[in-house]
Amino acid sequence: MTLPFNTLIPIERPSHLPVYIQVSNGLVNLIRDGKITPGTFLPGTREMAELLSIHRKTTINAYDELAAQGWIEALPRKGFRVVPDLPIVKPRTFKPKNNFPAAPAILPELLALPALVRPGAVSAYSEDDLVVDDGFPDTQLTPYSSFLQLYRQQLQLGQPQKAWLNKDEGGLMHLRSSSAGFLNQTRGLNITEERLMITRGAQMAIYITAALLIRPGDNVIVSEPNYFMADHIFQSMGAVIHRVPVDQEGMDTDRLAALLQTGSFRLLYVIPHHHHPTTVTMSSARRMHLLNLIKQHQLWVIEDDYDYDFHYRNNPILPLASAEHEGRIIYIGSYTKLLGPSFRIGYLVAARQIVEQAIKYRRLMDIRGDFMMESALATLIDNGALGRHIKRSKKIYATRMELAAGLIAGTLPHAIHFNKPQGGMALWLKFREDYPLARILAKAPSRKLHLTGSAYFEGHNSDYNSLRFGFASLPADQLKNAITTLAAVIAGS
Amino acid sequence: MTLPFNTLIPIERPSHLPVYIQVSNGLVNLIRDGKITPGTFLPGTREMAELLSIHRKTTINAYDELAAQGWIEALPRKGFRVVPDLPIVKPRTFKPKNNFPAAPAILPELLALPALVRPGAVSAYSEDDLVVDDGFPDTQLTPYSSFLQLYRQQLQLGQPQKAWLNKDEGGLMHLRSSSAGFLNQTRGLNITEERLMITRGAQMAIYITAALLIRPGDNVIVSEPNYFMADHIFQSMGAVIHRVPVDQEGMDTDRLAALLQTGSFRLLYVIPHHHHPTTVTMSSARRMHLLNLIKQHQLWVIEDDYDYDFHYRNNPILPLASAEHEGRIIYIGSYTKLLGPSFRIGYLVAARQIVEQAIKYRRLMDIRGDFMMESALATLIDNGALGRHIKRSKKIYATRMELAAGLIAGTLPHAIHFNKPQGGMALWLKFREDYPLARILAKAPSRKLHLTGSAYFEGHNSDYNSLRFGFASLPADQLKNAITTLAAVIAGS
Repeated sequence: MTLPFNTLIPIERPSHLPVYIQVSNGLVNLIRDGKITPGTFLPGTREMAELLSIHRKTTINAYDELAAQGWIEALPRKGFRVVPDLPIVKPRTFKPKNNFPAAPAILPELLALPALVRPGAVSAYSEDDLVVDDGFPDTQLTPYSSFLQLYRQQLQLGQPQKAWLNKDEGGLMHLRSSSAGFLNQTRGLNITEERLMITRGAQMAIYITAALLIRPGDNVIVSEPNYFMADHIFQSMGAVIHRVPVDQEGMDTDRLAALLQTGSFRLLYVIPHHHHPTTVTMSSARRMHLLNLIKQHQLWVIEDDYDYDFHYRNNPILPLASAEHEGRIIYIGSYTKLLGPSFRIGYLVAARQIVEQAIKYRRLMDIRGDFMMESALATLIDNGALGRHIKRSKKIYATRMELAAGLIAGTLPHAIHFNKPQGGMALWLKFREDYPLARILAKAPSRKLHLTGSAYFEGHNSDYNSLRFGFASLPADQLKNAITTLAAVIAGS
Repeated sequence: MTLPFNTLIPIERPSHLPVYIQVSNGLVNLIRDGKITPGTFLPGTREMAELLSIHRKTTINAYDELAAQGWIEALPRKGFRVVPDLPIVKPRTFKPKNNFPAAPAILPELLALPALVRPGAVSAYSEDDLVVDDGFPDTQLTPYSSFLQLYRQQLQLGQPQKAWLNKDEGGLMHLRSSSAGFLNQTRGLNITEERLMITRGAQMAIYITAALLIRPGDNVIVSEPNYFMADHIFQSMGAVIHRVPVDQEGMDTDRLAALLQTGSFRLLYVIPHHHHPTTVTMSSARRMHLLNLIKQHQLWVIEDDYDYDFHYRNNPILPLASAEHEGRIIYIGSYTKLLGPSFRIGYLVAARQIVEQAIKYRRLMDIRGDFMMESALATLIDNGALGRHIKRSKKIYATRMELAAGLIAGTLPHAIHFNKPQGGMALWLKFREDYPLARILAKAPSRKLHLTGSAYFEGHNSDYNSLRFGFASLPADQLKNAITTLAAVIAGS
């Protein structure tokens, strides 16, 4: 009996694959699926060519390919036979293949992870949609053309090959060194490059630190509310989370001190500058109290300083890590907030031994960074272009913050409360009880407004009814439009 | 008593930081370190200006900054006082600061990780050094200029903003879709984009899969020898590793079958095509046996297919994942081996529920990829440029393999044994016992030859005395030079 080869081996033209490979792949699938059993003779090359409406030479090439791959053998004067000692597979029905079907018991076997996307959020926007983000830079300001120019220069210098051969496991040494200088100048860190490694953004730095320090059951302290992705990292590693409230002076260090009396704690995660999500900057008194507590309790600390550079009221406040901390602070920051979301470059600053282990851990998950991008960024730090970009962006964002704050305070005082932050790229809007955020978020898209900033209104966050409103990426007209539309949504809700 | 402010507050000129910020930061450090205690009056602005040899206006600005940040307060007719309710810090000696000192007990508290770099390996090479890698592409062939052109086009179209707003959590949807098409055409996978996610190279895909599937104590099966970075990932997650030998037909599936009888196993990690490190391609009979075992024992399988596209003897052999496997195979590959080490783009193909969880897990460690690079790559797949690049590279690499294999077999038969692989980018050279690899690797750098490929000669690998010799990245003259030099090193050892 001859199989219906013409339906079992569909031939596509045009295709990247030569027809003879389509035929041999088709036959391999039939053998592997048990539709052609080991020891079976295939139709002769002439017959197969007729069955498939192809040239006989094509069939010969396909059979040669199968023989080379060890699936069939040519027997003199007998024809082509599927190698008899292949394990026998039970034949299945001839229904179309579905690779990667859902194994029935998949989900219970996988690590449980929380949902990423808010229910109802759209995944693609149209040209006239207005999207308010979580607090991201305006990519219109990003010096893309400088990057492209520097990429081209690197190519002309044969840099890709050289950079790769000089294997800088913790990121391109040029960028490690320039970053150390940049942080010393702007944050008073007083470090050299061996205390700094490059990561894919602050997120990877937090992840790696957590992976090095946290064992299942460890007690980890975070703020309340907290950057939710940090919570997810710690929880995925089996940490027990303890929460210390944030008020208008930042994390309440008296509450922290009381908590520290109650047990043994492995790690404190803190965002003293423009806390995420609340935008609060920690007061000087609390900072000093916190430094004392860290030393007294020998706490490991992640200081997440994700948007240090955009501070408007006065100069940025030096990080905790610039003070004496006995090597217990791991300081984390990012260039992504300066350059835009496609530039995933961050850094981790810590005692040398921690950096060395972090570099090893990073390779487990991501062998190396984009050294062409790293090299270009290092050059832009060295020649002052990054500094000028920050200065220029800061002025623009400060104006946008004033505009957004003024408009919201002026038009929506009955519905929204917020404190104008000292810096950063977002406002933390608390909606009054009568205006449940869930309803507003659900209604806004019908007016082409998408509020995609972190929203805290569910689960243990249900009392906040608050939203991060990113103002930095929106020019004045779009900011006005967004706030007017928000007012309309609120009025209609 | 006045402190020696001129030595305690070093002022750098020129500096990115204005002098007044240098002064205020310096004073903050002195306060935080307890050298100036809360309640202390600072010298008047005129006196401080004289002490620091700066303009008085600069001191006034510095004090204003400190007041704005909440460190000092101006008392009418009394001067400037450090805020009294700051917590008191015990003063330390006035030695220069060392941020991030080594905390004495750091290392025992961190996750233990194996060393990255072979002892004695240099970290930077000079222009006339000859570096033989593990089997990487020749970046001279990489279509960099196509990428730069496509970046520029994206900028002109305002693409960065749009791509970012259309948040494709599993990688740019365009690349997911083009990759699915590319894999269907070249590997017979028969998938759509929701069964594929983009990662930073194959390494991240292996890491994520392991993180989703492995719990401490789980039994994981790998080949012997095995890609050592995969071992490290599984071990860092607490897996117990079981090893099944690889011979000239690939992993020994009879030994695997016997092992599977002895207990419960969570995951099998297998590299059927150009196995790393041995370069062996698994035979058809073993592949079918393996597929049967997977189904019979309900094993989870990572199929790592890191350099499928470079196969010289016949066409590449279809991956296990293209056969019927009940959704239990997670198929992993990479574009890095096609484009070069700065392009860290890989993919994970699996049942939909696994991909969904993997996308969530990826965000914990790396929020998103470089969507400009992803977009450019998708375009190069769509317009056939990637296919042409593969075709061209394959021809060149095949020639280089013949050259390298011929030279080594011709000049070093007494010292080195190898089997010419069917494809890939490296030879697996077994040095005979009289030529201990440790000695050769140590001696080669003195002749400006650096053998940086994976070397198996230590620990549980001590019997191999074998090295991966990457031929693909070296043009003919350099290949000849490398092998002549290797012969000289061997002769002198």
